[in-house]
Amino acid sequence: MRLSKRATSDTGRSEALLAELGHGYLAAVQPDGWPLLRPLNFVYLDGRVYFHGARKGEKMDTLVTGGRVAFVAARDFSVVPSHFVDSQRACPATQYYEAVMIRGRARIVSDPDEKARALQALMEKLQPEGGHVPITAREPLYAASLKSTAVVAIEVEEMTGKLSLGQDRTPTRRKRVIKGLQRRNAPGDAATIDAMRAAAPGKELPDPS
Amino acid sequence: MRLSKRATSDTGRSEALLAELGHGYLAAVQPDGWPLLRPLNFVYLDGRVYFHGARKGEKMDTLVTGGRVAFVAARDFSVVPSHFVDSQRACPATQYYEAVMIRGRARIVSDPDEKARALQALMEKLQPEGGHVPITAREPLYAASLKSTAVVAIEVEEMTGKLSLGQDRTPTRRKRVIKGLQRRNAPGDAATIDAMRAAAPGKELPDPS
Repeated sequence: MRLSKRATSDTGRSEALLAELGHGYLAAVQPDGWPLLRPLNFVYLDGRVYFHGARKGEKMDTLVTGGRVAFVAARDFSVVPSHFVDSQRACPATQYYEAVMIRGRARIVSDPDEKARALQALMEKLQPEGGHVPITAREPLYAASLKSTAVVAIEVEEMTGKLSLGQDRTPTRRKRVIKGLQRRNAPGDAATIDAMRAAAPGKELPDPS
Repeated sequence: MRLSKRATSDTGRSEALLAELGHGYLAAVQPDGWPLLRPLNFVYLDGRVYFHGARKGEKMDTLVTGGRVAFVAARDFSVVPSHFVDSQRACPATQYYEAVMIRGRARIVSDPDEKARALQALMEKLQPEGGHVPITAREPLYAASLKSTAVVAIEVEEMTGKLSLGQDRTPTRRKRVIKGLQRRNAPGDAATIDAMRAAAPGKELPDPS
């Protein structure tokens, strides 16, 4: 799993994945030197990752103090067992996935309009069917909640896509994986084949040898 | 999302979740002060979290230098829309989930037997159907791979379970959520109801008021 070989700088692809995935993981460095790590729901808006939380607690204390954060959102594809490509060695066993990795600076959002906008965008993602009064800074229904909720923006300094779908493997190996997935046909396997083909168009052609 | 209210110290429950989940997230502090964050496959064995990776790269450099890591594995349950419990306010919208949060020290495994044992356990988890020669330190088939692969153990110093299944809410609210999930009946909603009931037995009873 070396980042260099599988990293992509296709920002459009990364942004599409961020729009699709409901949650991600945030890492920061605590004042005591330990890493902080939390799963959270987020929304990607205006080139920033926004999330919310309680105003008090370890997470906010760390973000206020530190500022430097890493954020990862990933979608799993199929587990590829070694026997799809090798009858003896365990080494080819792997988990296919696609991820977006971000480095940035956390900023506690103080502007009420930006806060409301981020929370409304989060709601539209989490609950696309609506069914609530829209969140705005002027809506009295949300006055207390907007004060008691902390909203954090990650100002993105670096965004890297990572694709682990066999796109860097030989056509022979890719063909074996696709055949194995077709034969197994477990939930998600058809979607994995589609994603493999999209990630490396043409490369799944039969090997001439 | 305050850890204090929803944290559990039920180690058995956390260990069962670690046995079930295929991947987790690792955070560490890089020598330059930035947090490092990676998704990875892992196995929980003998009270430790084991994972593997390439011998060279940012991840191993950081783990060698630092040592203090955080690890989280989580399972998502249903998204609970606000309108299940409130017809106006967006605030009750939430994502139900269960997580295990670990703090510990990373140790690069150098003993070939421990290395092979961890990799074999990882294979049994990732690929329970077998279909490969078992990994042992004495198996010539794996001599080169065992040398080129780095295996890391997290020596656990703190393990906390976190449960967000409405177990800390009022019976009225829990009942509304269960009714909403039953009515919606999306994939995963039945499993969420089961998990809610297991997490707070008796609390989903109709409210007398």
